Amino acid sequence: MFRMLEVTQSSPLGFSEAVREAVDELLRAGEKVHFFVVQEQRGAVRDGAVKEFQVVLKVAVEGQSG
Amino acid sequence: MFRMLEVTQSSPLGFSEAVREAVDELLRAGEKVHFFVVQEQRGAVRDGAVKEFQVVLKVAVEGQSG
Amino acid sequence: MFRMLEVTQSSPLGFSEAVREAVDELLRAGEKVHFFVVQEQRGAVRDGAVKEFQVVLKVAVEGQSG
Amino acid sequence: MFRMLEVTQSSPLGFSEAVREAVDELLRAGEKVHFFVVQEQRGAVRDGAVKEFQVVLKVAVEGQSG
Amino acid sequence: MFRMLEVTQSSPLGFSEAVREAVDELLRAGEKVHFFVVQEQRGAVRDGAVKEFQVVLKVAVEGQSG
Amino acid sequence: MFRMLEVTQSSPLGFSEAVREAVDELLRAGEKVHFFVVQEQRGAVRDGAVKEFQVVLKVAVEGQSG
Amino acid sequence: MFRMLEVTQSSPLGFSEAVREAVDELLRAGEKVHFFVVQEQRGAVRDGAVKEFQVVLKVAVEGQSG
Amino acid sequence: MFRMLEVTQSSPLGFSEAVREAVDELLRAGEKVHFFVVQEQRGAVRDGAVKEFQVVLKVAVEGQSG
Amino acid sequence: MFRMLEVTQSSPLGFSEAVREAVDELLRAGEKVHFFVVQEQRGAVRDGAVKEFQVVLKVAVEGQSG
Amino acid sequence: MFRMLEVTQSSPLGFSEAVREAVDELLRAGEKVHFFVVQEQRGAVRDGAVKEFQVVLKVAVEGQSG
Amino acid sequence: MFRMLEVTQSSPLGFSEAVREAVDELLRAGEKVHFFVVQEQRGAVRDGAVKEFQVVLKVAVEGQSG
Amino acid sequence: MFRMLEVTQSSPLGFSEAVREAVDELLRAGEKVHFFVVQEQRGAVRDGAVKEFQVVLKVAVEGQSG
Repeated sequence: MFRMLEVTQSSPLGFSEAVREAVDELLRAGEKVHFFVVQEQRGAVRDGAVKEFQVVLKVAVEGQSG
Repeated sequence: MFRMLEVTQSSPLGFSEAVREAVDELLRAGEKVHFFVVQEQRGAVRDGAVKEFQVVLKVAVEGQSG
Repeated sequence: MFRMLEVTQSSPLGFSEAVREAVDELLRAGEKVHFFVVQEQRGAVRDGAVKEFQVVLKVAVEGQSG
Repeated sequence: MFRMLEVTQSSPLGFSEAVREAVDELLRAGEKVHFFVVQEQRGAVRDGAVKEFQVVLKVAVEGQSG
Repeated sequence: MFRMLEVTQSSPLGFSEAVREAVDELLRAGEKVHFFVVQEQRGAVRDGAVKEFQVVLKVAVEGQSG
Repeated sequence: MFRMLEVTQSSPLGFSEAVREAVDELLRAGEKVHFFVVQEQRGAVRDGAVKEFQVVLKVAVEGQSG
Repeated sequence: MFRMLEVTQSSPLGFSEAVREAVDELLRAGEKVHFFVVQEQRGAVRDGAVKEFQVVLKVAVEGQSG
Repeated sequence: MFRMLEVTQSSPLGFSEAVREAVDELLRAGEKVHFFVVQEQRGAVRDGAVKEFQVVLKVAVEGQSG
Repeated sequence: MFRMLEVTQSSPLGFSEAVREAVDELLRAGEKVHFFVVQEQRGAVRDGAVKEFQVVLKVAVEGQSG
Repeated sequence: MFRMLEVTQSSPLGFSEAVREAVDELLRAGEKVHFFVVQEQRGAVRDGAVKEFQVVLKVAVEGQSG
Repeated sequence: MFRMLEVTQSSPLGFSEAVREAVDELLRAGEKVHFFVVQEQRGAVRDGAVKEFQVVLKVAVEGQSG
Repeated sequence: MFRMLEVTQSSPLGFSEAVREAVDELLRAGEKVHFFVVQEQRGAVRDGAVKEFQVVLKVAVEGQSG
């Protein structure tokens, strides 16, 4: 059984980079991540530029605790 | 990174009140809540009246544990 | 078996009140209402103010006749 | 012909109140508002309480300028 | 308040069996499960046959920890 | 013209069985059923087991009365 | 209160004509029809030509009986 | 860059005609229209007949003013 | 078994005509077409008029080759 | 690269069986099937019983021809 | 109150770059942009290569004029 | 008429790169590709890193064979 976690993460560089950072942070926290699905792509604009590319991800991790 | 928790809560008073109670219960449990999105609004009818206004919420909380 | 009726109702006061009025009218008509799901929330503006908060509801009633 | 404007507005009181404020602000700006449809309901939490009930509305106004 | 967990589970037998196994595993882990909603039905094919009927479920469990 | 009725039905055995029971009950009530579309699959858990597989169906019946 | 009926109707001529026939048949049956929303557009092909343009409509009629 | 305007228009004749009238009115207002996408098809019934075929369109126009 | 092909076709006359042309072209290519479902309705504007009514269709054809 | 084929198949026994038959028929036709996703579940009623459980599947097969 | 503008923009480089260009063009036009949501990602192929990565964005700008 | 093919492709670099590879592979296979629409963005994680950025694309190609 996988648990599907839903997380949001942002990167100043782009959507693919935000995905990588979300997965990295879950891996560092000890989650065994198998796959992910992008749910939403948003972003924040400040000081005349796109400052954050944000992704909302569903992430499949092993185990039913979570 | 935010974790998006999904919860359901109900109130006898209305949908806005059910939202407030869901957030309050998460705050009392120690979650650092930032924002929420309403996913669904339902309700239960008993004894000839609307007894529960129910909301299903996605709630953004700090941290990847959860 | 439940039949899911779809109805629209409006209230000058707010969405939760429109839900209550829809359920009340079905109960007065003799339906045995168990639960409801909000499908849509709309409204009408006239004479410089919101005059109607409208809800479209699916309402579960007992029995297969409708 | 109606133009459908999409706006977001918030209220500390509830979703129905946020709808009223969005419509009022458009009316004060001179728009001839006929009806609206709720697209999304969200909110912000700060200092241990729901501070903003936010609605995203599509609002039908007269005319093709906008 | 219910927490809505999202899990995926598979069975070689069929979709209804995959649902039962997902619920059983959550019960064995101590979750107090009340109801579930099927989100998605998928499957894997290997060696010339359907080897896995997979379901993605939202499962309502008691409590806000999760 | 077909009328599309929406009903919910449950079975302890599985989703396909719940579909059969919904159709059977409509046929016994005299409806001339032609086809159906599954809208939603849910279920209830009690006493440590899945007690109900529930389906929400749209069912096409002959005639405009309902 | 309006009841939202869901019906399917077909015409050999086109989608707009199928809508007209659905509404006409409901009016002849005594329903007080106010508005409709197209849910789906399909069709059947036989003998080398489109024989049926089919529409699935939600139709708002007065009253809570159905 | 295109701006996507959302408009509603109606015609007594049919959905394709309502689309043409919406585009014509935008062109007469000086918009440089490139393409459109139908979002919704509805209609109004009065005096025993379909009086309005209504379309909700997204219309792509040149420029970022709107 | 049916294969569901997805095609786009356009007509200067209207949506129903674009559907007919799509089906006719598939029939001329030897496909055994049974039914279709409209997925999307779009269009192109050039030289001050709607030049193309476009439909995206799913078309059910016999056989698993495609 | 996978091609996603969309097919419909039916079985008198249930939805899981219809899935198996769709996959089997594609395998017999020489497709290298990897996974599938259920898109829709429908059915046909004749002679007072459910005669067909129908599934619409997206099926991932190897290669870009198809 | 925010107005949600919907715009399309393209870039030869990728989706994240198309987002940046859309926001930049709105900022140069004097809009006070706060955030955006990706609605759709498409693209055009010409001369044997992807020539345009296109994004459809909803962009939140200050004020009710638009 | 265009045929809409649905394909999945992956890249270790990012979503835009996966799109490019999908289109390139179709072009090498002789398809005349005109445009594409992103349907889904997923990915696989192995050995502590995102190994595949996956896109599901609808791709419009000339002709009705497919």
